[in-house]
Amino acid sequence: MGAFDPDLALHPQGLGGRAAVVAEAFERYRSLIFSSWAHAARNASGGYDIAKLTVVVASADEKLELGVDESYTIYVAAAGGVNSIIGGATIEANTIYGAIRGLETFSQLCVFNYDTKNVEVRHAPWYIQDEPRFAFHGLLLDTSRHFLPVDVIKQVIDSMSYSKLNVLHWHIIDEQSFPLEVPSYPNLWKGSYSKWERYTVEDAHDIVRGNGYPKLWPSPKCREPLDVSSNYTFEVISGILSDMRKIFPFGLFYLGGDEVYTGCWNVTPHVRQWLNERNMTTKDAYKYFVLKAQEIAINLSWIPVNWEETFNSFKENLNPLTVVHNWLGPGVCPKVVEKGFRCIMSNQGVWYLDHLDVPWEDFYTSEPLAGINNTVQQKLVLGGEVCMWGETSDTSDVQQTIWPRAAAAAERMWSQLEAISAQDLETTILARLHYFRCLLNHRGIAAAPVTNAYARRPPISPGSCFIQ
Amino acid sequence: MGAFDPDLALHPQGLGGRAAVVAEAFERYRSLIFSSWAHAARNASGGYDIAKLTVVVASADEKLELGVDESYTIYVAAAGGVNSIIGGATIEANTIYGAIRGLETFSQLCVFNYDTKNVEVRHAPWYIQDEPRFAFHGLLLDTSRHFLPVDVIKQVIDSMSYSKLNVLHWHIIDEQSFPLEVPSYPNLWKGSYSKWERYTVEDAHDIVRGNGYPKLWPSPKCREPLDVSSNYTFEVISGILSDMRKIFPFGLFYLGGDEVYTGCWNVTPHVRQWLNERNMTTKDAYKYFVLKAQEIAINLSWIPVNWEETFNSFKENLNPLTVVHNWLGPGVCPKVVEKGFRCIMSNQGVWYLDHLDVPWEDFYTSEPLAGINNTVQQKLVLGGEVCMWGETSDTSDVQQTIWPRAAAAAERMWSQLEAISAQDLETTILARLHYFRCLLNHRGIAAAPVTNAYARRPPISPGSCFIQ
Repeated sequence: MGAFDPDLALHPQGLGGRAAVVAEAFERYRSLIFSSWAHAARNASGGYDIAKLTVVVASADEKLELGVDESYTIYVAAAGGVNSIIGGATIEANTIYGAIRGLETFSQLCVFNYDTKNVEVRHAPWYIQDEPRFAFHGLLLDTSRHFLPVDVIKQVIDSMSYSKLNVLHWHIIDEQSFPLEVPSYPNLWKGSYSKWERYTVEDAHDIVRGNGYPKLWPSPKCREPLDVSSNYTFEVISGILSDMRKIFPFGLFYLGGDEVYTGCWNVTPHVRQWLNERNMTTKDAYKYFVLKAQEIAINLSWIPVNWEETFNSFKENLNPLTVVHNWLGPGVCPKVVEKGFRCIMSNQGVWYLDHLDVPWEDFYTSEPLAGINNTVQQKLVLGGEVCMWGETSDTSDVQQTIWPRAAAAAERMWSQLEAISAQDLETTILARLHYFRCLLNHRGIAAAPVTNAYARRPPISPGSCFIQ
Repeated sequence: MGAFDPDLALHPQGLGGRAAVVAEAFERYRSLIFSSWAHAARNASGGYDIAKLTVVVASADEKLELGVDESYTIYVAAAGGVNSIIGGATIEANTIYGAIRGLETFSQLCVFNYDTKNVEVRHAPWYIQDEPRFAFHGLLLDTSRHFLPVDVIKQVIDSMSYSKLNVLHWHIIDEQSFPLEVPSYPNLWKGSYSKWERYTVEDAHDIVRGNGYPKLWPSPKCREPLDVSSNYTFEVISGILSDMRKIFPFGLFYLGGDEVYTGCWNVTPHVRQWLNERNMTTKDAYKYFVLKAQEIAINLSWIPVNWEETFNSFKENLNPLTVVHNWLGPGVCPKVVEKGFRCIMSNQGVWYLDHLDVPWEDFYTSEPLAGINNTVQQKLVLGGEVCMWGETSDTSDVQQTIWPRAAAAAERMWSQLEAISAQDLETTILARLHYFRCLLNHRGIAAAPVTNAYARRPPISPGSCFIQ
C-alpha cells in the first residue's frame, strides 16, 4: 500500500503538462481524493510513500472536438516505490483531456485507510493503459420539460466526468418552454416557464432550434411544425444558428426532425395552397424542411444530427454528413451505417433514463455495435447516448434518475468489448456498480440504490450503501 | 430598484464586523446573489446604485450557544439611494450570527433582472427588523439507518441556513450502525455498516451514546438495552461522553431514553439476580439507568435531553436541568412545562419528515405553544425540531425528503405568531413556499415539488418550478 502525502504535489511534464486545465483538474481531484471518504489527518511522523504525482502531457493542443484523444497510462509504484524503478505515481497522456481521464481513474484507485488515516493506493503496483472504445459517449439533458438551474447542470457535468461520459447533449428547448436567450430574436426566451427559469447567453452551453415568434406558426391553432411555407421561418432558424455558432465550438448540431406531425399544415389555408402550388404532400414538405435546415447548418460548418425518423423517411436525400440519432428501437444503426451515414445509439427500450422500469442490467448489456460486423461500418457508429428526458424529472430528482444506471451504459461505451462481455453481471459488475454508486454518494451526488425495483426509488430499509 | 455592482464590497463596522466568519459568509452570499439565478454580466456603462454592503456587528463575542442573539436589522435605500439619508445597503446585528441571518434575508431580497442583467433589490427601500421566536429551531438527521457522507451533511447544513434552522441534531448512532470513531473505545466504530461508512473524530459533529462492546450487552441474545447491572456499562458511557465533550462545545446532549424495551433484562440470569437483590422491577432499572446517565452528563456540564418516555415514566425523578423532547403526539409540552421542565416539540404526526403523507400545511400550522397560555411556562418551550429519520432515506433522497416541508416548520419556529397566523395558507404562504423551493433548486438543493401527494415524489408533468 502506497500512502499519500495529503500535500500531494503536481509534477507537470511535457508540452501540455503546465496547462491551467491540468492544474485545476489536479486540485479538483486532490480534494476528492483527500476528503470525499473521510478527512485524512496529517501524519505527524510524516514518512509518506508518495509525495508527488507526475503528469506528462505530450501535446499542448487544447482543441476539444469529437474524437479527441482521451487515452492515458498510469504507473503507481509499490509501497516504498520512491526507490523503485517506476518511482511514485505517474499519469501519461497525449492530450490534457486524456490526462483528466487519468486523474479520474487515479482518484478511484485511492482509498482512505481508517486504521492509519492515510489515503492509500491498494494493490499497488499498478500499470494501466486505457482509452474509450467510442468517440461519442454522451448524456442527454432536457431543460424544456423542467428548467434545471445552471448550478444543477454543473453538478450533472461533474458527475458525468466521474464515469467518463464526454458529451452533454443539452436538449435545451422543446414545445413546453424556450428558456434560452437568443440575441438576434430577444422575444424567443419569453417562451420560458417564468422569467426566473431562463438561461442567459452567458449561461448557455448548447444548441437550440426555434419556436416562439408567432409568425413562425402556421396559425395560432397550428403552432407546430413551424410554417414551412414562409421564408421567415428559415431566416429565424438561420439567425439562431448564427448566434449559437458564436457561442458553441462543438461540431455537432441537433436539427431534431423527430415526432413531426404535419397534419395541421394541411388544414392551414395558406400552407395548403403553398403545398398545392408545388404539388407537395406534407411528407414532401417535412423532407423539404429538414433538408433546408441541414443546408443552413452545414453552411455554418455544423455537422447536422437528425433523429432517426428523417433517415427512416428519406434516407436517400439526407446530406452525407448527417449523423443519425437512433431512439425508436433496436437494429437501426446497422441500417444507418450500411447506407454510409454515421450513427449514435439511444434505443429507448434500454437507454432512456426516464423509463424507470429498465434495470441497470439492460443499460449495461446494450451493445452499440450489435448486428454490425463490417469493421468499416463499425467505425461509423460514433457511440451512444443515455437520455434523461425531463417530463417527470427536475432538480429534485434528476441526479438519482441518471445515476447509477447511466454508469452502466458509460462502462459499455468506454470499455473494450472483451473487457466487459466476459464478466458475470450479478457478481463482479454489480459489485463494481454498488461501489461506484457509493463513490458518487461520497462525492455528494445523489445516486440512487442500484437494485431498487424502479429507478430513483428510495432504499426500502436501513442498510449499507454497498448492498442497496 | 437598486442595481448591485457584481463587485459588491463588504464594508465591515463595529467590534465584530471584521470577524473572519462575517467575511466568509459575505463571500458565500455574494456568490449566491450573483450566480444562483443567472450570471450577471458586468455592466459596461457601470453606474450601479449599490457598490458596497455595510455590515455592523456590535459584539466581538463569537460564542455560539443555545439562545445566542440571532436578531438583525436591514436597511436598503431606494434606487439612487447612494444620495439618500440611509445610503446603500446596511445590515446591523448584535452578534456575527445575527449578521449571518441578515445576509441570508438580504440575499433573498436580491433578484436577477433578465432585461437589464443586473441583480436588483425589488420594492426598495427596505427597513427590516427580525429575530427568531424560539431559541431552538432544529433538524434531526439520522446517520445510523443510512450513512450520510460528510459532504452530504454539509449540503444539508448549508440548506438549513437558507431557512434559518439553527440546530443540527445529529442522530449519529442507533441500533443499526455505529459509524463514529470514539478514541477511548476504538472498537465501537467497528459497528459501522462498512469500513467506508464511518466518521473519524476529525469528521465528527455531534454526540453519541454507546453500543458495540459485547460486554455492554446483557448477553449475545440480549443486546439492548445495555447491561444495567454492570459498572462497565457506565464506565463506557462516561468515556464516550468525555471524548465527545472534547469535540463538541454545544450544551445539549441527547441521552435518548426512548423506545426502551426492558424485557430481556428479566430473562438474563445475572441481570435478574441484580434486580432481585435490589428489589427493583425492570421499570425501576430503566429509571436507574437514565438517571445515572443524566448524572454522568451533568458532571461533564452537559444539559441532558431525554425523549418524552422518560418524562412520561418518572417525571418526579428527572433532573430539573432536563430538556424533554416530545415526539409521541400532541399535548406533551404543556404537561412538561407545567412541571417546570424545558421542552422541544417534534410531534411525529406533523413534524416527522419521514412521514411522507404529511402535507406542508400540517408542518406549517403546528404551533409549539399550543395549549400553553402562561407566559412563564411559554418561555420553557425552547422550540421545535423536524426529524429526518433515515429508514428509507439516504444520500439519494435525503434533501427532497427534508425540503420543502422543513421550510414550512422553519417559518413557524422563526416568525412571530401574529405574522404567520393571520395569512391565508393557500395563497400567500403557498406562493412563498413555491418561491422558496425554487430558490433552493437554484442554489443546487434538490427540494421536491411543494404540492405533490406524497413528500419527495417527482413532478407528475412538465411545468414551472413555481407551480409544482
